Amino acid sequence: MPSLPETMTAIAIPTPGGPEALQPETRPLPKPGPTEVLVRVAAAGVNRPDVMQRKGMYPPPPGAPDIPGLEIAGEVAAVGEKVSRLRIGERVTALVAGGGYAEYCVAEEAIALPIPKGLSMIEAAALPETFFTVWHNMIERGALKAGETVLVHGGSSGIGTTAIMIAKAFGARVIVTAGSPEKCAACRKLGADVAVNYKIEDFVAVTKAATGGRGAELIIDIIGGDYVNRNYNAAAMDGRVVQVSVQAGPNAAVDVRMIMLKRLTHTGSTLRPRPVAEKAAIGRGLLEKVWPLIEAGKVKPVIDSTFPLREAAKAHARMESSVHIGKIMLVVRA
Amino acid sequence: MPSLPETMTAIAIPTPGGPEALQPETRPLPKPGPTEVLVRVAAAGVNRPDVMQRKGMYPPPPGAPDIPGLEIAGEVAAVGEKVSRLRIGERVTALVAGGGYAEYCVAEEAIALPIPKGLSMIEAAALPETFFTVWHNMIERGALKAGETVLVHGGSSGIGTTAIMIAKAFGARVIVTAGSPEKCAACRKLGADVAVNYKIEDFVAVTKAATGGRGAELIIDIIGGDYVNRNYNAAAMDGRVVQVSVQAGPNAAVDVRMIMLKRLTHTGSTLRPRPVAEKAAIGRGLLEKVWPLIEAGKVKPVIDSTFPLREAAKAHARMESSVHIGKIMLVVRA
Repeated sequence: MPSLPETMTAIAIPTPGGPEALQPETRPLPKPGPTEVLVRVAAAGVNRPDVMQRKGMYPPPPGAPDIPGLEIAGEVAAVGEKVSRLRIGERVTALVAGGGYAEYCVAEEAIALPIPKGLSMIEAAALPETFFTVWHNMIERGALKAGETVLVHGGSSGIGTTAIMIAKAFGARVIVTAGSPEKCAACRKLGADVAVNYKIEDFVAVTKAATGGRGAELIIDIIGGDYVNRNYNAAAMDGRVVQVSVQAGPNAAVDVRMIMLKRLTHTGSTLRPRPVAEKAAIGRGLLEKVWPLIEAGKVKPVIDSTFPLREAAKAHARMESSVHIGKIMLVVRA
Repeated sequence: MPSLPETMTAIAIPTPGGPEALQPETRPLPKPGPTEVLVRVAAAGVNRPDVMQRKGMYPPPPGAPDIPGLEIAGEVAAVGEKVSRLRIGERVTALVAGGGYAEYCVAEEAIALPIPKGLSMIEAAALPETFFTVWHNMIERGALKAGETVLVHGGSSGIGTTAIMIAKAFGARVIVTAGSPEKCAACRKLGADVAVNYKIEDFVAVTKAATGGRGAELIIDIIGGDYVNRNYNAAAMDGRVVQVSVQAGPNAAVDVRMIMLKRLTHTGSTLRPRPVAEKAAIGRGLLEKVWPLIEAGKVKPVIDSTFPLREAAKAHARMESSVHIGKIMLVVRA
């Protein structure tokens, strides 16, 4: 293990704005707190909240780094005094509070997971955000069971591709929405039973037709806006709708009588503000139930594209173009 | 037991309209099906769905009688061939599919419950609709726990008064909304810790002030309309909102981001269309957990007023005036 440098390259946001607002800067190495480890970053994932943060619309929570980046993979380079499990040199993938777009990043030991066998560092860094989100919302909160039908909006997104594979591995039937024939084909290739091109088809009608009129038992929604009431229409009796994001906006006109008549449950969550202990509990579920599926080759993160750290602006431009299928990654150390 | 007459008086709705649309008619006695009993009705409850049905806005489900009335108490006068538990002459209170505004009414044996000791027939007939509704939505679906705060809208309604008493008996703190100082006082007398006169106070602000800014863990809502988004505002982190009716209308403009940020659960149900087996399961919960509270004097149906069967129109006029506190009852046999 080389001795630690005093400074590192990180991607900062000196002034919020377009992709070009992302600027390489030299920063001091962050210091791990008592329960944290310092990770020498090999790769980091790009996520929608990073784009929001870059635009100045999603300030980091108090105490979090101002550098964007919510997920990393790399080697442990230093450990806090209360760290008990991880050792210097171990390879981990971690959900972080920010600071992932950098050569070094601190991570709570409790949410730094071992890298599943067979995955590259880039693939490993693509896991935390979408796998924590999908596991909690689709399995823990949404209680998806074998034999049920789940409707996943944004099927070609990081969350969508992860949801397709985990749902299929758990024995569910999967309907997705996506915005082009190519994206629909990619979703089918990952296992989706039905892919709806939302630009030319009505997902409510397709979902009902594909379920003998019953509707979907579970709906995972990253869209919001006018999808909310349509989700109520597309849901089965006793169906659940889990709100994971609101990319089309938070305001919805709904008929709440449908909640009563169908005995629906509409719930949702955000990952970032939750206490470390709650994130650690989600991580234990992943380690026990999903890491084996990854190691068996049944589930695998879908990588859309990779960019060197210094070209983070290009990575953001690609995310905002919405042509990507799966995860956009930053390579920090080849 | 006298022999059964061939006909009876029932209150029919020859033409939908105002309260005067309720007309006494002579009808043949209904015949119990194999799993049903015929009840000689002593008293029947008046409920909002009866008013809707009278207006022609809530047709009875297929197979249900055209006579209004969803709850009765009386004596078993005849039994179907597969009835195993109830005997002629036994006193029961029953949730019925319709037909309660009559001298005789059929009831499924599985949802005809024994009358709690100490209650009159009128009090017993006031139980089914509100107690089945409150038990299922507040305890089973809403999972109210001791120490939690529940916000109950329409605190002086049949559902509201029942919810106050059951919530207090289960160790919860109760905030209610009601539309006059008299109604607020009545709710406090039944045990409500805080009563909000919604005409002059904002229930969101009062709920937050009464919970140290946290909000209510559970909200039982019969109002809908613009209350829905305000409920999301008034709810605590991880709070539950259970929709029981939509008296202000089903259309709501909501900020679904609140569902995510607070990890809310919005659910709800209607009682009438559920299969008998599901209603029977709710009834078993009541018999086990709530009938003992009634027999111990801790929970008691609140009777607003009683009217003779033939004056059902007056009972409806009173319900529509919204001055009542608790249940409006029809006395069929003194």
